[in-house]
Amino acid sequence: MKIPIVRDILEANDRIAEQNREIFNQNRVLVINLMSSPGAGKTTLLEKAIDALKNDIHIGVIEGDIETTRDAERIAAKGVPAVQINTKGACHLDGNMIRDTFNEFNFAELDLLVVENVGNLVCPAEFKIGEDFKVMILSVTEGDDKPGKYPLMFHESKVLLVNKIDLLPYVDCSMEKIREDALKINPEIVIFPVSCKTGEGLDAWFSWLKEKVKGKKTEVRGQ
Amino acid sequence: MKIPIVRDILEANDRIAEQNREIFNQNRVLVINLMSSPGAGKTTLLEKAIDALKNDIHIGVIEGDIETTRDAERIAAKGVPAVQINTKGACHLDGNMIRDTFNEFNFAELDLLVVENVGNLVCPAEFKIGEDFKVMILSVTEGDDKPGKYPLMFHESKVLLVNKIDLLPYVDCSMEKIREDALKINPEIVIFPVSCKTGEGLDAWFSWLKEKVKGKKTEVRGQ
Repeated sequence: MKIPIVRDILEANDRIAEQNREIFNQNRVLVINLMSSPGAGKTTLLEKAIDALKNDIHIGVIEGDIETTRDAERIAAKGVPAVQINTKGACHLDGNMIRDTFNEFNFAELDLLVVENVGNLVCPAEFKIGEDFKVMILSVTEGDDKPGKYPLMFHESKVLLVNKIDLLPYVDCSMEKIREDALKINPEIVIFPVSCKTGEGLDAWFSWLKEKVKGKKTEVRGQ
Repeated sequence: MKIPIVRDILEANDRIAEQNREIFNQNRVLVINLMSSPGAGKTTLLEKAIDALKNDIHIGVIEGDIETTRDAERIAAKGVPAVQINTKGACHLDGNMIRDTFNEFNFAELDLLVVENVGNLVCPAEFKIGEDFKVMILSVTEGDDKPGKYPLMFHESKVLLVNKIDLLPYVDCSMEKIREDALKINPEIVIFPVSCKTGEGLDAWFSWLKEKVKGKKTEVRGQ
């Protein structure tokens, strides 16, 4: 009896996400949906990206959290427009929540909108928000068995950032196993091993992202 | 429009959880619902507990995962009865899923049943399964801002195990802040800092748990 209800909610959400996407496309804003377990480093990674990219591209941020405005405050301190969504218990962002932030942004002036989802390796992967693509972060401290155990997020993501590689000497985690298992689930996934602490690997990810922003700005679009 | 549906599901679940609980009580089995983010160390902690306690108490385990039977295999290798639930996408265990495992156990022979929930710091806290109490694990690698950002799980748990304290020198995380913020949300929560790697702190947690198992065996119950 639960299945049809869930399907209705997902279908209604897909329609709203599609409307959001149309608005993002009209404004040629690249939108990424950033997902991970709690504490994998989403906000820190975003702070680093803003520092590295804000002279070249105009970035806006939507922060999704169950409670608190801490993350949006951290981002706003970097001098970019940031809006906090408090989901009040909900474990993921959906299309409606994103639409409710639209009055807070001038999309014509943005090149990149990063939506930081609620920390959760399961539910956010099911809900589209109008993004161009999903980016997930896995911290090496979570262990190398995660692709097999949480396959949907690996399947839905275009990019996998493997974070905290500076801690590899202290934890039982094989980078090679993560890579192999992630590629088994999603052969197209692009993997960047990074450390927000040492900066290792970040440049490669930022260059890749900049290319995608440029592509969105210059793409030829039909009706 | 979504709220009533969600409320119906939660109320139906509460009724089934209550029936499970009655069966556990009749058999005087202490049942704990073990929750955390992915990779915080639930299964490793459970392996350590089995090694330490299995000569004194009879332990059974239910493993909840979206996919794979890896965790139940790890537990069964320790020589205790273990049943794997694959939720096939669902982000939490519920009362029905637990009930479906009952044929696999002889509860009259068990003292302690540990239910390892799906790795998720949000949704599992909303669903009762018939447990005596909830135990959550937070890894120090997730950061000290987690009580404020994921308050429900801290609010619902009787015990907070702060794991991976051997990594404290390498991460930005204050044990004191975790303690303070967790107690603000739940002044009754019992906190054990532990390391599954070095064994630090585990004995205190195992002793506490053994006392609870003993209490359940000898409790005077009304009709």
